[in-house]
Amino acid sequence: MEAPDFEERDVGRIVAFTDGVMAVAITLLVLNIEVPRLPGTDERRLEDELADLLPSLLAYLLSFALVGQYWVVHHTLFENLRSFDRALMGLNLTFLALIALVPFASELIDRYEQEPVAAAVFAGILGLAALTNVLMVRYIARRRFLRAPRPGPPEPFPGAVSLAIALVFLLSIPVAYLSVTAAKLLWLLVLVFRYPLRRIGT
Amino acid sequence: MEAPDFEERDVGRIVAFTDGVMAVAITLLVLNIEVPRLPGTDERRLEDELADLLPSLLAYLLSFALVGQYWVVHHTLFENLRSFDRALMGLNLTFLALIALVPFASELIDRYEQEPVAAAVFAGILGLAALTNVLMVRYIARRRFLRAPRPGPPEPFPGAVSLAIALVFLLSIPVAYLSVTAAKLLWLLVLVFRYPLRRIGT
Amino acid sequence: MEAPDFEERDVGRIVAFTDGVMAVAITLLVLNIEVPRLPGTDERRLEDELADLLPSLLAYLLSFALVGQYWVVHHTLFENLRSFDRALMGLNLTFLALIALVPFASELIDRYEQEPVAAAVFAGILGLAALTNVLMVRYIARRRFLRAPRPGPPEPFPGAVSLAIALVFLLSIPVAYLSVTAAKLLWLLVLVFRYPLRRIGT
Amino acid sequence: MEAPDFEERDVGRIVAFTDGVMAVAITLLVLNIEVPRLPGTDERRLEDELADLLPSLLAYLLSFALVGQYWVVHHTLFENLRSFDRALMGLNLTFLALIALVPFASELIDRYEQEPVAAAVFAGILGLAALTNVLMVRYIARRRFLRAPRPGPPEPFPGAVSLAIALVFLLSIPVAYLSVTAAKLLWLLVLVFRYPLRRIGT
Repeated sequence: MEAPDFEERDVGRIVAFTDGVMAVAITLLVLNIEVPRLPGTDERRLEDELADLLPSLLAYLLSFALVGQYWVVHHTLFENLRSFDRALMGLNLTFLALIALVPFASELIDRYEQEPVAAAVFAGILGLAALTNVLMVRYIARRRFLRAPRPGPPEPFPGAVSLAIALVFLLSIPVAYLSVTAAKLLWLLVLVFRYPLRRIGT
Repeated sequence: MEAPDFEERDVGRIVAFTDGVMAVAITLLVLNIEVPRLPGTDERRLEDELADLLPSLLAYLLSFALVGQYWVVHHTLFENLRSFDRALMGLNLTFLALIALVPFASELIDRYEQEPVAAAVFAGILGLAALTNVLMVRYIARRRFLRAPRPGPPEPFPGAVSLAIALVFLLSIPVAYLSVTAAKLLWLLVLVFRYPLRRIGT
Repeated sequence: MEAPDFEERDVGRIVAFTDGVMAVAITLLVLNIEVPRLPGTDERRLEDELADLLPSLLAYLLSFALVGQYWVVHHTLFENLRSFDRALMGLNLTFLALIALVPFASELIDRYEQEPVAAAVFAGILGLAALTNVLMVRYIARRRFLRAPRPGPPEPFPGAVSLAIALVFLLSIPVAYLSVTAAKLLWLLVLVFRYPLRRIGT
Repeated sequence: MEAPDFEERDVGRIVAFTDGVMAVAITLLVLNIEVPRLPGTDERRLEDELADLLPSLLAYLLSFALVGQYWVVHHTLFENLRSFDRALMGLNLTFLALIALVPFASELIDRYEQEPVAAAVFAGILGLAALTNVLMVRYIARRRFLRAPRPGPPEPFPGAVSLAIALVFLLSIPVAYLSVTAAKLLWLLVLVFRYPLRRIGT
């Protein structure tokens, strides 16, 4: 095993940068909910316009929950990380570049809610982000970058949950061309996946 | 009591992510104050236009102060947190999703300052955020996630202040339909609530 | 002396939140430099349009340097802070609300570069932020919130540098009505003020 | 050697502020990818419009990767920093002011992808940022601000990698006037430079 390029001290800074990017990306989601611009002050019309924002609000909540879920997954992965190298850094930046695209993807599915191609782009971005997570989990396991050896038998397939999330998103792409609504229901599934905590690491 | 999913070390990262989201949300509030676009350079007209921004500035200051107050409340709550689990994580993300909506809500009450429905949306978002805080306080107390047992008699109702904030906001919704100004005065009340420091935890 | 409401542990979180708000505000400044929108692809015209952005770039650099300077001043102030209370929290939020207004003020002086009222608003916001700093320095000194007693004779006037910065900005307001350029030159003065490091605290 | 103005404790806060600015700047890059606005819902046209976004996506990925690379370089530089002074603070703020301009520069090369002057501005900003890094490396080496003396023979030229990055960008400026594509290929070179880790410091 060659010496890792970064030490534990650095993991803290990488985590802080990752949290920063995810915090900004998740908060930028709100910019997609546009306050209606009405010429006069017509209360009834404002109520109607606000009711029309409901799909935007749902797209916001869905994207917020998904980025939140990815944050939990990332957090679990880096929790016991002891060291770091350049390849892992590259994978983490790839993950962040995909997460930072979510505000774009979220606006897309909001503006074109019935278009399969919009749903496909959204699912593709989140699916690739989950796949990058799988690669990180497996790389970390292979390079033994974790703080403590895992007690008990080794996990049969590290990153199984990230892989399941990736598969759901990738599967939802063809589904979207049959029914966009069905694809979106599939995405909700991702929110209930529970990452096997304490499997990796401790 | 089943073992918590996250340990104290992790609380730091969750707090950092929370602070990041709140810092971005509070700073995005400024985007609602739009620099006037005048065709020529007419000093008198620029002065008038800037004077017209005063309500926007007040909406900014009010929203900034409210998010700041929620930050203090959240800070007090997490100060002595020892551990964390998935349910608390979900509640915290719900809280953040509501806080990240404040720039939208703030722009809404600024653009439609006399519309009851705009005030109702603002109050609803902040009221729900406070209610989520109440749920977090009670969940933390029930799961004994705090670092030290509280000295002295147990607090009669943990989260009383968050509940009071929530009630003020929810009460202001019907009030807004009688008088938007009265509803806004009610909101100012929230800024003077003092969280009983050192009650939770130490 | 009554017990402080927050302990040293908390100072870290307040500092992190402050840094977050200042980092977002300083980075939002770039949004004021708008990429020109030309109909066709006419290289000569693009060069002209980019040259026209030079004043915007200077406004950006000036505002960036000023927020950076305020960050250094804030950093020096909080470096040896041991504890915190609600009043200091309120002052710090007031300071942040003013700093978060800088992207607005910077866009204003950029769009109306010859208007005294634009310069006055910019100077007013930064002057008030510096005054809030003076109040924080004096409050911290009075409440003995610093980690170590200052060696040697006590500083004659804590916060002298922040006060000087505030005075320069407030003085530049009437100056702007005589000459906007003179007011801007005064602001540059602020960048060369050196905070008496190690005076407060150690 | 005169006493440094800031101690190690402070390095943490400067790093946190730097990470904050870089995290916001890198995430703002996504705002340049604009969701198409189509009048009706015409799936074929939406697919075409999304395909037209491909150059924007590539500009996003390039800029994201470059800012990520600069983050790694900055991280390596500050990893073993023990202390800090005002001059280094000024250099670091200069570096950040240039990094915060990247979202502007990225939008510029995206909108005017065949214009040499757009490529020249992009390369100039990133080249100056790399040069500022060289200055920081050399200043840190000269002031002996690193935690541990370097084992083995001293590095012949500290900051060689940052200098190479700067030279590639500056060289790409005249190249852009011959071929914008050739200039962009040169930029990709920067992504493969490996900073000699553990050379500075440990």
